Amino acid sequence: MQVSGGDLQRLRQLNSLSSIRALREARDPLTLTELSARTGLSRASVGDVVTDLEQRGWIAEERPAPGAMGRPAKRYRFRTDAGHVLGIDVGVHKVLAVITDLAGRVVASGRVAVDRHTAQRERLEAVWRAVDAALIAAGLTVADMWGVTAGTTGVVNREGLVTRVNDLPDWPGVDLVGHLGQRLPCPIAIENDSKLAALAEQRLGVAAGVQDLVYLHVGRRPGAALIIGGRLHHGFSGATGEVGLMEITGWSTMAGRLESGATAEGASPEEAARLVFGAARGGDPDAQAAVDAYARHLALGTAAMVLTLDPELVVLGGGFSRSADVLLPALRRALEPHCVRVPDVRPSTLGEECVALGGACLALDHVDDRFFSPAGSISSPAAPQRLT
Amino acid sequence: MQVSGGDLQRLRQLNSLSSIRALREARDPLTLTELSARTGLSRASVGDVVTDLEQRGWIAEERPAPGAMGRPAKRYRFRTDAGHVLGIDVGVHKVLAVITDLAGRVVASGRVAVDRHTAQRERLEAVWRAVDAALIAAGLTVADMWGVTAGTTGVVNREGLVTRVNDLPDWPGVDLVGHLGQRLPCPIAIENDSKLAALAEQRLGVAAGVQDLVYLHVGRRPGAALIIGGRLHHGFSGATGEVGLMEITGWSTMAGRLESGATAEGASPEEAARLVFGAARGGDPDAQAAVDAYARHLALGTAAMVLTLDPELVVLGGGFSRSADVLLPALRRALEPHCVRVPDVRPSTLGEECVALGGACLALDHVDDRFFSPAGSISSPAAPQRLT
Repeated sequence: MQVSGGDLQRLRQLNSLSSIRALREARDPLTLTELSARTGLSRASVGDVVTDLEQRGWIAEERPAPGAMGRPAKRYRFRTDAGHVLGIDVGVHKVLAVITDLAGRVVASGRVAVDRHTAQRERLEAVWRAVDAALIAAGLTVADMWGVTAGTTGVVNREGLVTRVNDLPDWPGVDLVGHLGQRLPCPIAIENDSKLAALAEQRLGVAAGVQDLVYLHVGRRPGAALIIGGRLHHGFSGATGEVGLMEITGWSTMAGRLESGATAEGASPEEAARLVFGAARGGDPDAQAAVDAYARHLALGTAAMVLTLDPELVVLGGGFSRSADVLLPALRRALEPHCVRVPDVRPSTLGEECVALGGACLALDHVDDRFFSPAGSISSPAAPQRLT
Repeated sequence: MQVSGGDLQRLRQLNSLSSIRALREARDPLTLTELSARTGLSRASVGDVVTDLEQRGWIAEERPAPGAMGRPAKRYRFRTDAGHVLGIDVGVHKVLAVITDLAGRVVASGRVAVDRHTAQRERLEAVWRAVDAALIAAGLTVADMWGVTAGTTGVVNREGLVTRVNDLPDWPGVDLVGHLGQRLPCPIAIENDSKLAALAEQRLGVAAGVQDLVYLHVGRRPGAALIIGGRLHHGFSGATGEVGLMEITGWSTMAGRLESGATAEGASPEEAARLVFGAARGGDPDAQAAVDAYARHLALGTAAMVLTLDPELVVLGGGFSRSADVLLPALRRALEPHCVRVPDVRPSTLGEECVALGGACLALDHVDDRFFSPAGSISSPAAPQRLT
């Protein structure tokens, strides 16, 4: 068999990729012998690859524990700090920017409070203040970011434009990608906030490892997002999980009826809902009936998605998930009569950071596609310099 | 860089895989120069690979057209006849076995009529008669089959057992995989019939190339199946597309009301439905009203799936799709008020063979996973001998 220069380069790249992948997936640092066993590469090839990857900043030698006897074999680990990504939640009430390493661990974040009356221009300025705060906290610059994904309320179409928004009248049509591109010289994506929250739960939260799940954003206006086959399901026009548009589900009006169960004068809708959940928790029969009615409506739309997809898991996220102790049993009961098999239902565990974290997860997916897939390019340009 | 024997073998396998893939994807036979350009391999490597693959039966030299002048460059094509798979439709009214080549082209088929009163044992015997007929017609034996997938009515769970069946009382629990394994020494799978029909439409029919689609099986009892991200969506327990279980859709009763619109005495339900569609086609206002009412119910369940998934396309299959000229415009009208974006709706084009064809497509997917993926083994044992 003849081996050309191009063949050799390709072989070297594939060997680098499989070594990086093995070191990323390993819980502990690996010796050259272990790495050779896991990749199927010869010991000699592994030695070459490791020297090259260490020089280029992708992997590092792990120091032996102090006091270790003799001369232990060298061990290597993937440098999760070789690169960083940025996840941004451009929400109605806050803008939150998180910077994570290549393992999705948050190294810094910045937050700016906004509200539903904040105008588009101020909201976009708040994005930069949150991003700058996160960068300062991390000791990094925009040039260190390998990718960024921002989450926004509303439907995001294939072209990355916000098309339909319920909460913010001046938000449809906003060009978030263009705005972020003014200062961030890396690949940029935007996505619907519930979709990113779903992805975060599947990568880092309560749904870790689950392949098919329905994420319910439960609050004043419920929404939903889908993970199918381990990937975020975007849909043809971005409008997935929109079962609440079927009038029979009652999703557009059910929160109002829940809140009307509260007796506190002048309470905001969110406070009123929290009071009702609290009273139900305390055993108040009227409040329990209001929660049950809310759960029955929630179950109608949820059943439509569960019967369509037969998912393994339903994750309860959004503001009302803080009252999951009351709402979750009611939802389970209400799903029973509709479903062939009621899937497991679990409350979200990631809390308020979930959208920004999901943005970081999606940016990491794109990093993976660019650098760590067989079609990717591990060699150019070298980490930990900026890779584009 | 050091290159070991193992490295060389791996390089050779990867080069073989990328050459096979390029030749499979090409419309026309390729010269060595073209193959080198498409794979990025050196001309010398391509020469080695082609010689090896031709010897092992994976590719063949294409004869130059008679009368071609001079000495044209040799051209090579992937041998789609290097292997065959078997798709079987174990239906209520028929058992149909099709044998296809590696491109999904039918080379032979065998069919046996059964009916809803055929007992399990006779239906299973009919499977062998249909398979034997197809093998004889193809001039092949069971040892030539690289894979088989059978489609069946009812829900098929992850373990490959039929769990819920509407039409055949003695069919739940039937072990089709075990039955087929008695004589077929290749990988065997079973799957729900509508799911296979959906896959066939996406690979060979009206939905070719569409990534996300909802397949509607419209008939006396409508059903549905999903293709998501280009792959068949099985669901956690196989029970996807079951929106008809929501009572508000009316899917369990709507056909009866359609048929009651027919005036022919003693007609079977299927004939009655056909008469109503025919009368509507002829402009009869009562028949048109009955079709509209059927379409409104069909649209309720379809909207639940469309709002969940936002698919590009809805395919209308099943017995009533023969009246798509009448039913399809009514369905489109009925979907309009429910959907944010009404997807394209098209009638199935594959007709009665769709389930068996879908079985062949799924068997081909499994062949791909075994032989043509980077993790697969192209080299052992050699085609066109039997590969397991």
